Amino acid sequence: MASAEPPYVAIARRKQAALAASIPAQWKLPEHLIPAGMLTPAESITEGPKQYGRVNVMNIPRTCGLLTPKELDITEKYDVRALVLSMTESKLTVEEVVEAFCKRAAISHQLTRCLTEPLFDRALNRARELDDHLRRTGTPVGPLHGLPVSVKDSFNVKGVDTSVGLAALAFQPATSNAALVDLLESLGAVVIAKTNVPQTLATLDSCNNLFGRTLNPLNRQWTAGGSTGGEGALVAMCGSMVGFGTDIGGSIRVPAMCQGIYGFKPSEGRIPFGGQGGGGIPGKSRMSIQAVAGPIARSVADLGAVMAEIVPRAELFGEDCIPGFWPTPSVPATLSPPRNFTIGILKTDGLVTPLPPITRVLDEVAQILRRTPGVEVVDIPTPPAMRKCQAVAGGLMGIDGGSNTLDLLESMGESLMPWHLQQGKFGPKRGKPLDIFQVADLQARRSELERELLKMWTLGLSPERRVDAIICPMAGHPVPPLDSYKGVGYTSSFVLLDYPAGNLPIRSFTESDLELGQAMDTPLLGGWDKMNRQLWDKKVTDRRVYLDSPLSVQIITPKQRDYELFQAMEIVDRAVQGHGNTTQAKL
Amino acid sequence: MASAEPPYVAIARRKQAALAASIPAQWKLPEHLIPAGMLTPAESITEGPKQYGRVNVMNIPRTCGLLTPKELDITEKYDVRALVLSMTESKLTVEEVVEAFCKRAAISHQLTRCLTEPLFDRALNRARELDDHLRRTGTPVGPLHGLPVSVKDSFNVKGVDTSVGLAALAFQPATSNAALVDLLESLGAVVIAKTNVPQTLATLDSCNNLFGRTLNPLNRQWTAGGSTGGEGALVAMCGSMVGFGTDIGGSIRVPAMCQGIYGFKPSEGRIPFGGQGGGGIPGKSRMSIQAVAGPIARSVADLGAVMAEIVPRAELFGEDCIPGFWPTPSVPATLSPPRNFTIGILKTDGLVTPLPPITRVLDEVAQILRRTPGVEVVDIPTPPAMRKCQAVAGGLMGIDGGSNTLDLLESMGESLMPWHLQQGKFGPKRGKPLDIFQVADLQARRSELERELLKMWTLGLSPERRVDAIICPMAGHPVPPLDSYKGVGYTSSFVLLDYPAGNLPIRSFTESDLELGQAMDTPLLGGWDKMNRQLWDKKVTDRRVYLDSPLSVQIITPKQRDYELFQAMEIVDRAVQGHGNTTQAKL
Repeated sequence: MASAEPPYVAIARRKQAALAASIPAQWKLPEHLIPAGMLTPAESITEGPKQYGRVNVMNIPRTCGLLTPKELDITEKYDVRALVLSMTESKLTVEEVVEAFCKRAAISHQLTRCLTEPLFDRALNRARELDDHLRRTGTPVGPLHGLPVSVKDSFNVKGVDTSVGLAALAFQPATSNAALVDLLESLGAVVIAKTNVPQTLATLDSCNNLFGRTLNPLNRQWTAGGSTGGEGALVAMCGSMVGFGTDIGGSIRVPAMCQGIYGFKPSEGRIPFGGQGGGGIPGKSRMSIQAVAGPIARSVADLGAVMAEIVPRAELFGEDCIPGFWPTPSVPATLSPPRNFTIGILKTDGLVTPLPPITRVLDEVAQILRRTPGVEVVDIPTPPAMRKCQAVAGGLMGIDGGSNTLDLLESMGESLMPWHLQQGKFGPKRGKPLDIFQVADLQARRSELERELLKMWTLGLSPERRVDAIICPMAGHPVPPLDSYKGVGYTSSFVLLDYPAGNLPIRSFTESDLELGQAMDTPLLGGWDKMNRQLWDKKVTDRRVYLDSPLSVQIITPKQRDYELFQAMEIVDRAVQGHGNTTQAKL
Repeated sequence: MASAEPPYVAIARRKQAALAASIPAQWKLPEHLIPAGMLTPAESITEGPKQYGRVNVMNIPRTCGLLTPKELDITEKYDVRALVLSMTESKLTVEEVVEAFCKRAAISHQLTRCLTEPLFDRALNRARELDDHLRRTGTPVGPLHGLPVSVKDSFNVKGVDTSVGLAALAFQPATSNAALVDLLESLGAVVIAKTNVPQTLATLDSCNNLFGRTLNPLNRQWTAGGSTGGEGALVAMCGSMVGFGTDIGGSIRVPAMCQGIYGFKPSEGRIPFGGQGGGGIPGKSRMSIQAVAGPIARSVADLGAVMAEIVPRAELFGEDCIPGFWPTPSVPATLSPPRNFTIGILKTDGLVTPLPPITRVLDEVAQILRRTPGVEVVDIPTPPAMRKCQAVAGGLMGIDGGSNTLDLLESMGESLMPWHLQQGKFGPKRGKPLDIFQVADLQARRSELERELLKMWTLGLSPERRVDAIICPMAGHPVPPLDSYKGVGYTSSFVLLDYPAGNLPIRSFTESDLELGQAMDTPLLGGWDKMNRQLWDKKVTDRRVYLDSPLSVQIITPKQRDYELFQAMEIVDRAVQGHGNTTQAKL
């Protein structure tokens, strides 16, 4: 019988056993605390939102009894700077902090399947070294001394698999660390786990044959997003202070949006990207489009706290990085930008008309900002170039025809995931690789789009920047059910353009949002627009699935203006929080 | 008879007639002042060093009588900042400054064939506008108000050809300005001319069928270098304050070296590059290796004066640019860096052993720096990765197989230039374009080399920068005779690596340099090394040809550390000048 199984099945079984074994028995949840429907990894792939039901597991770490009150405090009550300060001032040991987070990560995993490689033993050993170092020398190892962080499975960690959920890559431990891992460790941070990703890394549901599906802890009917989906769930559940992912089509921002937290996609060269495993073609990104690494966290301040330490040192660790500027301390705690900060509102990319609740939340943010001292709000007419970005980004991502990943899947008899299968003709297939003249043509079109879009920042006037940041949708739709995220134009465009881009949760979806726009009556813009509308079409979608889901906006700044993105996120977040309706407050 | 001519001949004749007609009669040198051997453009291509003879034309502008004493002062006695100040303080009008430079550019051209498109009428009109503006408003148009500059022929100027010396591209005026031209004009600079380039832009002698050969004004037996060769000759002769070129294999630095002046190859994204004509494949550079734009000038201060204004504004004009940092004023006039400035000495790239005079001048600079307060000198062992850079750079430049340029040449029946013909099997030919996997492989190798070479800056120790700048040869040989520049590994490597790199003239070649190393007895490193040795082999080369030629060093800094390159060039230049033996003083 076993011989009839495709080869990946046995590998998945071994991988899952290893994962289960790396969680100490005393950190395991009693079965009755695990909500019904927490299926096996294999079943989790095929089960849909109905089977899972509307279940929020966010509170279970608080109620399960596995975490002591002190551990609950450690994992919930600190931001990055305060937590590091407590350790450097020896109010907390690194060991107790790291243990609290490892434990909470283990609990989170049992509720969401967010981990791939727990690094608990390694992390605890490192924690003791850090404590020793501080005791011996009186100085911390670095500015992030003891900070528990986690990384997407694609980052190499020496001695650990970088399988990215593919059986063909399992049990081949990496021989060196990714540059970011080295950099984080030099800063004193402690990597406590690697986290789950989608099959092929290119979808928006973090679901694969080795580790199953990562579930959204807010509501297991919603997708957790991808491709940094494991980090989205883990960080939202306070199982890690900061999670590092990668983003080429939205893979940092989308999971942040789905879990109602904060994601920051930097420009190229700000955070070392090199040292990714996952079976990609080495060098391809350098001739096509380059994914970037970036953080997911529970606050803008936490994003800033890690960026401030990484960005200025990135050029020393990553051959793919450049000198970076990140002033500390950043803008003062009260909102007082040195001059009027001009924020543009871009309502649509011209390719997908956002569904009514998305437009509404954008309008609400604009209204809040119009009442915010020191902020000027301007409307940005959609530049015609904007609707062309997604196609060029998609073209560049696909120059090799995709056979590489399919070879890996087929070699182990792996089945495709439901999201892939739903894509029909847009799903993964063996395409013909482009020739270099076709790639050059795509790059030339990209340059034209960049040139056109320079004018967006000057409001089409003379070349002098007039807009500091632009707010636009994260997607055409709210956080959708499992396997139904539609289109990444709103996120991939800003990788194509190398604009820093972040996700900012604004508020939860309410009953009053349900009846907005009974039908979408704006002219249909094309295939992507049509797919998006299905998510608001009562014949296809029960809109009540969106109730309580986090509604976000995206913020972008001009190319390589990463610090300014952080500033803009701070300004908007404070304005919105001052207004009392953040998602954070409700989680 | 005429019908037997290849089509390019008539086009070249028209182009040359148009060029001659754009020089006013009163700016023409009397025939007796033009040294014998200033042949027609067509003859200039095939004549060699012997026909030209050892002739220095640097002094002719001073002695010809066409320039008034005031015009001589204007063109010789000011640096960039002082000249702009004189105009903004209305001590000089822009019109008289621009006219003086146009006149001197016209004279320089008649002695070196350095121009392709004189823009004298356009420049004088613009000069009067600038004067009007200052009179009317009391404020200058920009920080480079009235500064006469010139650009390599490849930069588009609206209404003017971008033929780059190819008949197939002649008489097709550009429809818009290159972004750099727009930026320069917004700063108040006045573009007075476009300048000569090599056929195909990829050789080191600026020689083509449309405009003939640009001659080196110091000695017409030596190459003027390329591909920004026209600028090298023009700026050296004080026919322009600053010339802007482009560099992928050394094309800014090599002509600066050949004329004993200063060239600065920035990192990518510092100066807008877009808006180049010349028949290249749009988008190719973005998937292979990117040429950059940069200045040639007569002093480090002049390089800094323009970079300080361009770099911070580049992102507003060039979609290919990023935010740039350039503090003004820069380091104080006395050498007092805030801490020890560490300069590494890299004696060889491991691929071409420099000829003895090159090694000697590098040693001399090291000795001067060792005696310079505030400077620490360290030896840099040649990293094995360094010798691999040239091949990867060359591979990336040639991914398309080169048919594009050959098609343009053949369509007009154009003959290849002598430099090309000498290359034999390395000369231009129709190669098979690479496929995308081969290009990806080159890019992956490039990333490996970058990663290896990160360690060079830390002396192989932990990732903390210990070396601020590195001094190395510009080439394996001194300024060679026409058509005999060998190899660009020492210059192309730093485009591959995106290290800012500049040329610094040190001193002239003397009699005592002649007898150094009677024979090269170090082990032969390969084909490039062998070709290089021929330039010191008494059986092939009469070494006396090098007498009085400018000997240079190259300075590099880590990726994107452009301001630090400027600082390093200032520090080394002052140290060397303090030592009293600059080439400048002798010209």
